[in-house]
Amino acid sequence: MRIHRLAALAVVTLAFAAPALALDAIVEKKVFTLPSFTTMNGETIKYVRVGYETYGTLNAAKDNAILIPHFFSGSSHAAGKYAASDAAPGYWDAIIGPGKPIDTNKYFVLSSDTLVNLSTKDPNVITTGPATINPDTGKPYGMSFPIVTIRDFVNVQKALVDSMGITKLHAVIGASMGALQTFEWGAAYPDAVARIVPVIGGPELDAFAVGWLDLWAEPIRLDANWNKGDYYGKAEPIAGLTAALKVVTWHARYWQWAETALGRKWASPDKDPAKSWDNKYAAQTWLETAAAGRAKVSDANHFLYLVKANQLYSLGSKGNWEEGLKAIKAKVLLMPAKTDLIFFPDFSKRAAAKLKELGKTVDLVEIEGTLGHLDGLVAIPKVGDRLATFLSD
Amino acid sequence: MRIHRLAALAVVTLAFAAPALALDAIVEKKVFTLPSFTTMNGETIKYVRVGYETYGTLNAAKDNAILIPHFFSGSSHAAGKYAASDAAPGYWDAIIGPGKPIDTNKYFVLSSDTLVNLSTKDPNVITTGPATINPDTGKPYGMSFPIVTIRDFVNVQKALVDSMGITKLHAVIGASMGALQTFEWGAAYPDAVARIVPVIGGPELDAFAVGWLDLWAEPIRLDANWNKGDYYGKAEPIAGLTAALKVVTWHARYWQWAETALGRKWASPDKDPAKSWDNKYAAQTWLETAAAGRAKVSDANHFLYLVKANQLYSLGSKGNWEEGLKAIKAKVLLMPAKTDLIFFPDFSKRAAAKLKELGKTVDLVEIEGTLGHLDGLVAIPKVGDRLATFLSD
Repeated sequence: MRIHRLAALAVVTLAFAAPALALDAIVEKKVFTLPSFTTMNGETIKYVRVGYETYGTLNAAKDNAILIPHFFSGSSHAAGKYAASDAAPGYWDAIIGPGKPIDTNKYFVLSSDTLVNLSTKDPNVITTGPATINPDTGKPYGMSFPIVTIRDFVNVQKALVDSMGITKLHAVIGASMGALQTFEWGAAYPDAVARIVPVIGGPELDAFAVGWLDLWAEPIRLDANWNKGDYYGKAEPIAGLTAALKVVTWHARYWQWAETALGRKWASPDKDPAKSWDNKYAAQTWLETAAAGRAKVSDANHFLYLVKANQLYSLGSKGNWEEGLKAIKAKVLLMPAKTDLIFFPDFSKRAAAKLKELGKTVDLVEIEGTLGHLDGLVAIPKVGDRLATFLSD
Repeated sequence: MRIHRLAALAVVTLAFAAPALALDAIVEKKVFTLPSFTTMNGETIKYVRVGYETYGTLNAAKDNAILIPHFFSGSSHAAGKYAASDAAPGYWDAIIGPGKPIDTNKYFVLSSDTLVNLSTKDPNVITTGPATINPDTGKPYGMSFPIVTIRDFVNVQKALVDSMGITKLHAVIGASMGALQTFEWGAAYPDAVARIVPVIGGPELDAFAVGWLDLWAEPIRLDANWNKGDYYGKAEPIAGLTAALKVVTWHARYWQWAETALGRKWASPDKDPAKSWDNKYAAQTWLETAAAGRAKVSDANHFLYLVKANQLYSLGSKGNWEEGLKAIKAKVLLMPAKTDLIFFPDFSKRAAAKLKELGKTVDLVEIEGTLGHLDGLVAIPKVGDRLATFLSD
């Protein structure tokens, strides 16, 4: 009996896992170009280029498309690998693919790089921002690049979606800064999206987060090499950018993760932190290494533009998220993470209550976990069935 | 009837408030001096000076003394005013005084500045640290000052207490870094303290906080004026110190406070943050102003020494807080704050469970509020009756 039960379990597991195993697709980066783009502030950016990836097949009716906007330090690489030898697939590979919650056997998934994407030095990221050559001067824009907003990110995506002849998206699903874009899609283009799934993000950046994002950015401005954004072709503000990415990296996590992953271990077993300023805890050196790695592919000015875009965010054109929610026609599934310290789950709960009050179709599923904000990326498979059901309803 | 009930209420309120009204005592700073002090690392500091204040009267038996160690950016100014014209009294004035929970009609309250106190430029703070003149060189120590620990802070206090002929403290009560010292008193000198009340602090600095404190300190090291700590008599690292104090100031608060106090208001009603990098939200300018004010009285190297002392903290001599708890003989009252993002209440709850398991006398009272970590200073009067009962038991 015992053996039989285990065998049955194995079959179930395989049946569940099989489609997922079949899915390590090789993906490629594509480029979308706009000869001219006008920002919400009324400024013109010539020759906008953003990268995008697609998974699955657009059907003849062009009504099976799901758009995935990305998070602050993310990119359009949401699923699959560029080569079988890649260390890791795209960030949401666990939920995007054939037989997965965002099922590429059914849906055509489109994931796009934003304007001012952070990772300008990642060859697989294509973006337009302060590190881009200004065609009028032949030099990088630096801080002369126009201030852009979450709505501008969405408007570039709208142009991309339009270019494919898609008039209504089956869904928009995004995490963190991607959730802001997801909400904005619902309010800015209510007839062009049937479902929105804001994951670990709310309908505005609250005052506490506005302050925090200043603290993320501050180390860049303190680095003398930042030079008011004029560092291209010179020594770059690597120390400041690394420090900024340390804050982001830590703020997106939670104490339970830190305790389990790092604890109070010394970085070197023979180097007591009490004995020298050079002796550190593992938590300190882990953070330094993680941030230094991220800094290598990032641009400091792009970081500042992303901070500004996020700080400016309140849903809709009136700067009042409760007003903004009124325009939404899409069904809404909110997915906050329980231990999130950036977008506290309270914000999603409040938005859900308001949407319900407005007579909208709304559901909320909290993602359990100990990784804080990052559970929206890492622990989301736990609630994959709820996501799949919402998408097929 | 209605009028009678209101009148009765007024009488009750007055009866409750009257002793508190009687308490705006004028306090003075005193100085405790040690010709030589040896740190836990075995290094000697000559001519240690720390400031202290006392409220109430030491009785003949010398058994009514309560010691108050201070928090990271705090000082020995826990209650009263130096002059009637002072804008505000000491930080815990609401709970220290005649008829208040820490009742100076009954107790002799002693509050002491730590080594490496942050506020070296506050004329009412007396401390010894990197900004102090090294008597051997005639110049400030800078980063050559010995690394000091929470236990070293406690050992200086122990010498002060000994100098007064007090062999057993009625209680030690401290908030945040003061809670670490409170715990340490219980473990290091179990026969010298009858009660400990760690408020908003646990028996160790957990891995997440170890990382966060690096992020507090980072802006100082990024400021070129810091110059590896050698800035006395030169341009000081004010920008870095201000940025560091911004992180502390914000980390010690909570989103509900920020929303209520500041919201998404613009700093200037005619300056839309979307239109210019110079245009800010009120949350940004409030934070800048608050931190700049604190930076004026603070020293950057002292900040770094405090960060190190806190990072090194795990209760007891074995670097294992659970082991450390075993030594405690005092009755324990833990007071975490519900919305604390620095010392999450989980740490206090875990410590309480462990103390109970060890057969110790322990109670825990959570401080409700929306101000985060700072509720340990601001909202503690809400649980003042629980504190008073614990102290008189």
